[in-house]
Amino acid sequence: MVLLRQEIGDVLRDARRQQGRTLREVSSVARVSLGYLSEVERGQKEASSELLASVCTGLGLSLSEVLELVRERVERVETLSAPVSLPVGHAMSDTVSASAA
Amino acid sequence: MVLLRQEIGDVLRDARRQQGRTLREVSSVARVSLGYLSEVERGQKEASSELLASVCTGLGLSLSEVLELVRERVERVETLSAPVSLPVGHAMSDTVSASAA
Repeated sequence: MVLLRQEIGDVLRDARRQQGRTLREVSSVARVSLGYLSEVERGQKEASSELLASVCTGLGLSLSEVLELVRERVERVETLSAPVSLPVGHAMSDTVSASAA
Repeated sequence: MVLLRQEIGDVLRDARRQQGRTLREVSSVARVSLGYLSEVERGQKEASSELLASVCTGLGLSLSEVLELVRERVERVETLSAPVSLPVGHAMSDTVSASAA
Protein backbone atom coordinates (compact mmCIF):
# COMPACT_ATOMS: atom_id res chain seq x y z
CA MET A 1 0.00 0.00 0.00
CA VAL A 2 1.46 3.35 -1.03
CA LEU A 3 1.05 5.85 1.80
CA LEU A 4 0.53 9.44 0.70
CA ARG A 5 2.05 10.94 3.88
CA GLN A 6 5.32 9.10 3.22
CA GLU A 7 5.64 10.50 -0.29
CA ILE A 8 4.56 14.02 0.76
CA GLY A 9 7.15 13.92 3.55
CA ASP A 10 9.91 12.85 1.18
CA VAL A 11 9.02 15.58 -1.34
CA LEU A 12 8.96 18.31 1.32
CA ARG A 13 12.28 17.19 2.79
CA ASP A 14 13.96 16.91 -0.64
CA ALA A 15 12.74 20.39 -1.61
CA ARG A 16 13.99 21.89 1.65
CA ARG A 17 17.40 20.22 1.35
CA GLN A 18 17.77 21.26 -2.29
CA GLN A 19 17.30 24.83 -1.10
CA GLY A 20 19.95 24.26 1.58
CA ARG A 21 17.53 25.23 4.33
CA THR A 22 17.13 23.87 7.84
CA LEU A 23 13.98 22.48 9.43
CA ARG A 24 14.10 25.38 11.89
CA GLU A 25 14.19 27.95 9.10
CA VAL A 26 11.27 26.51 7.12
CA SER A 27 9.15 25.83 10.19
CA SER A 28 9.69 29.44 11.27
CA VAL A 29 8.80 30.94 7.86
CA ALA A 30 5.80 28.61 7.51
CA ARG A 31 4.75 29.29 11.12
CA VAL A 32 4.40 25.62 11.98
CA SER A 33 5.99 23.80 14.89
CA LEU A 34 9.42 22.35 14.18
CA GLY A 35 8.43 19.03 15.74
CA TYR A 36 5.29 18.70 13.63
CA LEU A 37 7.16 19.53 10.39
CA SER A 38 9.88 17.07 11.30
CA GLU A 39 7.32 14.29 11.82
CA VAL A 40 5.57 15.19 8.55
CA GLU A 41 8.87 15.04 6.65
CA ARG A 42 9.55 11.59 8.09
CA GLY A 43 6.08 10.39 7.06
CA GLN A 44 5.12 9.83 10.68
CA LYS A 45 2.28 12.32 10.78
CA GLU A 46 -0.39 13.33 8.28
CA ALA A 47 0.02 16.94 7.21
CA SER A 48 -3.19 18.90 7.62
CA SER A 49 -4.21 20.79 4.48
CA GLU A 50 -3.42 24.07 6.25
CA LEU A 51 0.06 22.94 7.30
CA LEU A 52 0.78 21.67 3.79
CA ALA A 53 -0.28 24.98 2.25
CA SER A 54 1.91 26.93 4.72
CA VAL A 55 4.95 24.74 4.12
CA CYS A 56 4.54 24.98 0.34
CA THR A 57 4.45 28.77 0.63
CA GLY A 58 7.45 28.66 2.96
CA LEU A 59 9.36 26.65 0.35
CA GLY A 60 8.27 28.96 -2.46
CA LEU A 61 6.41 26.16 -4.22
CA SER A 62 2.78 25.98 -5.28
CA LEU A 63 0.66 23.11 -3.97
CA SER A 64 0.19 21.85 -7.54
CA GLU A 65 3.97 21.68 -8.03
CA VAL A 66 4.35 19.67 -4.84
CA LEU A 67 1.47 17.39 -5.90
CA GLU A 68 3.16 16.73 -9.24
CA LEU A 69 6.36 15.67 -7.47
CA VAL A 70 4.32 13.50 -5.10
CA ARG A 71 2.36 11.95 -7.98
CA GLU A 72 5.59 11.04 -9.79
CA ARG A 73 6.94 9.31 -6.68
CA VAL A 74 3.68 7.45 -6.06
CA GLU A 75 3.54 6.30 -9.68
CA ARG A 76 7.11 4.99 -9.42
CA VAL A 77 6.27 3.02 -6.27
CA GLU A 78 3.08 1.66 -7.87
CA THR A 79 5.04 0.50 -10.92
CA LEU A 80 7.71 -1.14 -8.78
CA SER A 81 5.20 -2.90 -6.54
CA ALA A 82 2.89 -4.07 -9.34
CA PRO A 83 2.74 -7.86 -9.61
CA VAL A 84 4.99 -9.04 -12.44
CA SER A 85 3.91 -12.13 -14.37
CA LEU A 86 7.06 -13.66 -15.82
CA PRO A 87 6.45 -15.95 -18.79
CA VAL A 88 8.26 -18.78 -16.99
CA GLY A 89 5.91 -21.44 -18.29
CA HIS A 90 6.50 -20.41 -21.90
CA ALA A 91 10.26 -20.25 -21.50
CA MET A 92 10.32 -23.73 -19.97
CA SER A 93 8.13 -25.33 -22.61
CA ASP A 94 10.32 -23.67 -25.28
CA THR A 95 13.39 -25.22 -23.66
CA VAL A 96 11.71 -28.59 -23.50
CA SER A 97 10.70 -28.36 -27.17
CA ALA A 98 14.22 -27.35 -28.10
CA SER A 99 15.85 -30.29 -26.35
CA ALA A 100 13.17 -32.65 -27.68
CA ALA A 101 13.87 -31.47 -31.24
CA MET B 1 -5.40 29.22 0.37
CA VAL B 2 -6.10 26.02 -1.61
CA LEU B 3 -7.00 23.24 0.80
CA LEU B 4 -5.93 19.77 -0.30
CA ARG B 5 -8.73 17.97 1.57
CA GLN B 6 -11.35 19.96 -0.35
CA GLU B 7 -9.92 18.95 -3.73
CA ILE B 8 -9.38 15.32 -2.69
CA GLY B 9 -12.98 15.18 -1.48
CA ASP B 10 -14.32 16.57 -4.74
CA VAL B 11 -12.26 14.12 -6.81
CA LEU B 12 -13.40 11.12 -4.77
CA ARG B 13 -17.05 12.16 -4.93
CA ASP B 14 -16.90 12.86 -8.67
CA ALA B 15 -15.27 9.49 -9.34
CA ARG B 16 -17.88 7.66 -7.25
CA ARG B 17 -20.78 9.45 -8.94
CA GLN B 18 -19.35 8.84 -12.40
CA GLN B 19 -19.40 5.14 -11.54
CA GLY B 20 -23.02 5.49 -10.40
CA ARG B 21 -22.17 4.14 -6.96
CA THR B 22 -23.51 5.10 -3.55
CA LEU B 23 -21.52 6.22 -0.51
CA ARG B 24 -22.73 3.07 1.26
CA GLU B 25 -21.41 0.82 -1.50
CA VAL B 26 -17.94 2.40 -1.69
CA SER B 27 -17.55 2.67 2.08
CA SER B 28 -18.43 -1.01 2.35
CA VAL B 29 -15.99 -2.15 -0.35
CA ALA B 30 -13.24 0.12 1.01
CA ARG B 31 -14.02 -0.98 4.59
CA VAL B 32 -14.22 2.56 5.91
CA SER B 33 -17.04 4.09 7.90
CA LEU B 34 -19.78 5.70 5.82
CA GLY B 35 -19.77 8.81 8.01
CA TYR B 36 -15.99 9.26 7.70
CA LEU B 37 -16.08 8.84 3.90
CA SER B 38 -18.97 11.28 3.66
CA GLU B 39 -17.04 13.90 5.64
CA VAL B 40 -13.92 13.34 3.52
CA GLU B 41 -15.94 13.78 0.31
CA ARG B 42 -17.31 17.06 1.61
CA GLY B 43 -13.80 18.28 2.49
CA GLN B 44 -14.68 18.41 6.16
CA LYS B 45 -12.15 15.85 7.32
CA GLU B 46 -8.61 15.04 6.30
CA ALA B 47 -8.36 11.57 4.78
CA SER B 48 -5.66 9.50 6.44
CA SER B 49 -3.23 7.94 3.97
CA GLU B 50 -4.66 4.52 4.78
CA LEU B 51 -8.27 5.61 4.16
CA LEU B 52 -7.28 7.28 0.91
CA ALA B 53 -5.51 4.13 -0.29
CA SER B 54 -8.55 1.99 0.60
CA VAL B 55 -11.01 4.30 -1.12
CA CYS B 56 -8.85 4.49 -4.26
CA THR B 57 -8.79 0.68 -4.37
CA GLY B 58 -12.56 0.61 -3.76
CA LEU B 59 -13.05 2.95 -6.71
CA GLY B 60 -10.71 0.93 -8.91
CA LEU B 61 -8.30 3.84 -9.25
CA SER B 62 -4.62 4.05 -8.44
CA LEU B 63 -3.44 6.69 -5.97
CA SER B 64 -1.39 8.33 -8.74
CA GLU B 65 -4.49 8.65 -10.93
CA VAL B 66 -6.38 10.32 -8.10
CA LEU B 67 -3.41 12.61 -7.41
CA GLU B 68 -3.32 13.68 -11.05
CA LEU B 69 -7.02 14.64 -10.90
CA VAL B 70 -6.41 16.48 -7.63
CA ARG B 71 -3.35 18.26 -9.05
CA GLU B 72 -5.38 19.46 -12.07
CA ARG B 73 -8.08 20.88 -9.80
CA VAL B 74 -5.56 22.56 -7.50
CA GLU B 75 -3.76 24.09 -10.47
CA ARG B 76 -7.04 25.48 -11.78
CA VAL B 77 -7.86 27.07 -8.41
CA GLU B 78 -4.32 28.50 -8.15
CA THR B 79 -4.63 30.05 -11.62
CA LEU B 80 -8.03 31.54 -10.84
CA SER B 81 -6.93 32.95 -7.48
CA ALA B 82 -3.59 34.34 -8.68
CA PRO B 83 -3.37 38.12 -8.34
CA VAL B 84 -3.97 39.79 -11.71
CA SER B 85 -2.04 42.98 -12.43
CA LEU B 86 -4.01 44.96 -14.99
CA PRO B 87 -1.93 47.47 -16.94
CA VAL B 88 -4.25 50.29 -15.83
CA GLY B 89 -1.41 52.80 -15.33
CA HIS B 90 -0.08 52.22 -18.83
CA ALA B 91 -3.50 52.42 -20.44
CA MET B 92 -4.18 55.72 -18.71
CA SER B 93 -0.87 57.32 -19.61
CA ASP B 94 -1.39 56.16 -23.21
CA THR B 95 -4.76 57.90 -23.23
CA VAL B 96 -3.24 61.06 -21.78
CA SER B 97 -0.45 61.02 -24.39
CA ALA B 98 -3.02 60.47 -27.15
CA SER B 99 -5.16 63.45 -26.14
CA ALA B 100 -2.07 65.61 -25.63
CA ALA B 101 -0.83 64.85 -29.16
